[in-house]
Amino acid sequence: MEAGGTKMVCAVGSGLNDLEETRFATTSPEQSIREAVSFFISTQQRRGSIRAIGIGTFGPADIDVNSATFGSIKNTPKANWSNTDLATPLRSALGDIPLAFETDVNAAAWGERKWGAARDLDDFVYITVGTGIGGGAVSGGKILHGEGHPEMGHLRVPHDREIDPFDGDCPFHGNCLEGLASGSALQQRWQCDPRELKEDHPGWELEAHYLADALANLTLTLSPGRFILGGGVMEQSHLFHKIRQRLSQRLAGYLSLPELEEFIMPPGLGAQAGVLGALALAQDLISTIPSQP
Amino acid sequence: MEAGGTKMVCAVGSGLNDLEETRFATTSPEQSIREAVSFFISTQQRRGSIRAIGIGTFGPADIDVNSATFGSIKNTPKANWSNTDLATPLRSALGDIPLAFETDVNAAAWGERKWGAARDLDDFVYITVGTGIGGGAVSGGKILHGEGHPEMGHLRVPHDREIDPFDGDCPFHGNCLEGLASGSALQQRWQCDPRELKEDHPGWELEAHYLADALANLTLTLSPGRFILGGGVMEQSHLFHKIRQRLSQRLAGYLSLPELEEFIMPPGLGAQAGVLGALALAQDLISTIPSQP
Repeated sequence: MEAGGTKMVCAVGSGLNDLEETRFATTSPEQSIREAVSFFISTQQRRGSIRAIGIGTFGPADIDVNSATFGSIKNTPKANWSNTDLATPLRSALGDIPLAFETDVNAAAWGERKWGAARDLDDFVYITVGTGIGGGAVSGGKILHGEGHPEMGHLRVPHDREIDPFDGDCPFHGNCLEGLASGSALQQRWQCDPRELKEDHPGWELEAHYLADALANLTLTLSPGRFILGGGVMEQSHLFHKIRQRLSQRLAGYLSLPELEEFIMPPGLGAQAGVLGALALAQDLISTIPSQP
Repeated sequence: MEAGGTKMVCAVGSGLNDLEETRFATTSPEQSIREAVSFFISTQQRRGSIRAIGIGTFGPADIDVNSATFGSIKNTPKANWSNTDLATPLRSALGDIPLAFETDVNAAAWGERKWGAARDLDDFVYITVGTGIGGGAVSGGKILHGEGHPEMGHLRVPHDREIDPFDGDCPFHGNCLEGLASGSALQQRWQCDPRELKEDHPGWELEAHYLADALANLTLTLSPGRFILGGGVMEQSHLFHKIRQRLSQRLAGYLSLPELEEFIMPPGLGAQAGVLGALALAQDLISTIPSQP
């Protein structure tokens, strides 16, 4: 299950080529969870028992398996969703089966590693640039958690108001990366749907500028072998070239980077990365349990 | 052994309370290695065989155990030191014993985890602010490597030239963190030894400002439980309070941080963190080998 701020994606299956999926709008926690449970139960009746659950959720989320509130969304600006426990109602409905719980971007990163553009990579970063911006990292072959989880969307980037007088629209930080470079920021700054901006609109150079600054700092911190950039804004495929060029300029030859076309890539799984990643996480749990005949 | 750009620290022993140490200036690779070998061999004659070697070195360094040049310093601006193999001459002299090789800051982080200010922490960052700036991270209980190793000193931070007209002195990036906030940058900007700047000099507010910006981005990327800030510049202990305040402002309540006094701390091992970390790395190698009677 991918729990997104605007839509929920639920799927049952064993992989890329065996997947039953449904999508519905995210409403109240009660209704959204009810719809998810109803899909899982009806699919289970046809396909046989679901053996494990994987959830990738919008955050901030309690992904600490040792925490009393593991499996919950924490204090979120999204109305009515603060302190929503996703794990308990799903496990009540589906039986006390293993449950994996991650942020949506961590799950997407994991999906890209299993089936997408990061196969066999132990160190890479997945970033989504959509209405908001989020990022997840795999480091040394494991999802990077730290004490909580990364919040890469809120990275601070240099903001020159002479070039870009837009204040930024992040409710917490104003002009952090998300405040300056998310789909929402583009909409605010240019007062139109960003998809209407032509390829040669200066807004795209500015967008590449901010994203390259964030990628430069992530490179210097995590030393990843690849960046996978997904989300609605990155459907502007001309952005990839602009970001590669600017990142290379920023780092000024200090690090030996992989080929830029290999270093900064689109997702292999597109908009399915999150739900497939949640599936991959559930499968990992099953593989640690003795198999049943 | 800690191989620093200005001095070498060599030590033999079993821990904090059993350590024979020597320090000498870093000269040419040949002479520096000769001095190190000579210390290790004479100490060995008195104490018995050295069982493993740990090296923490200035970088960039090849710390990939699967690389043909593992144990070497890579292309470095430090004259005569590019492509210097440290591992081979030490192992030739001391026998084919296990050898650990890390960056100086990774080693220092590891030392702080074993004996210093990060005991029992699985997620933290060690940063040294001296002539240059470097950082190492422990993530999920392991030293974070990525494809190469972090280069946190070169993080890009916002630079407002109206407040700070100094261009920055990093030869690669100009106004990266190191270019704006290292001891060398302070010396250049204020045209004096930074130790001469009084506690209420505005230079310290500026210093805290840049460091807090870097720490904010590292927090959002790595979600560490603690920052340990060492190096000569951080001997200005009033900086800790200034950095804590500014970091808290930057993050604007978005993340729930630990108590700031616990979150940003000085090293427990002071200037010995590097060499003790190298010792800890060597001990880790021994612990994986069947013990000898």
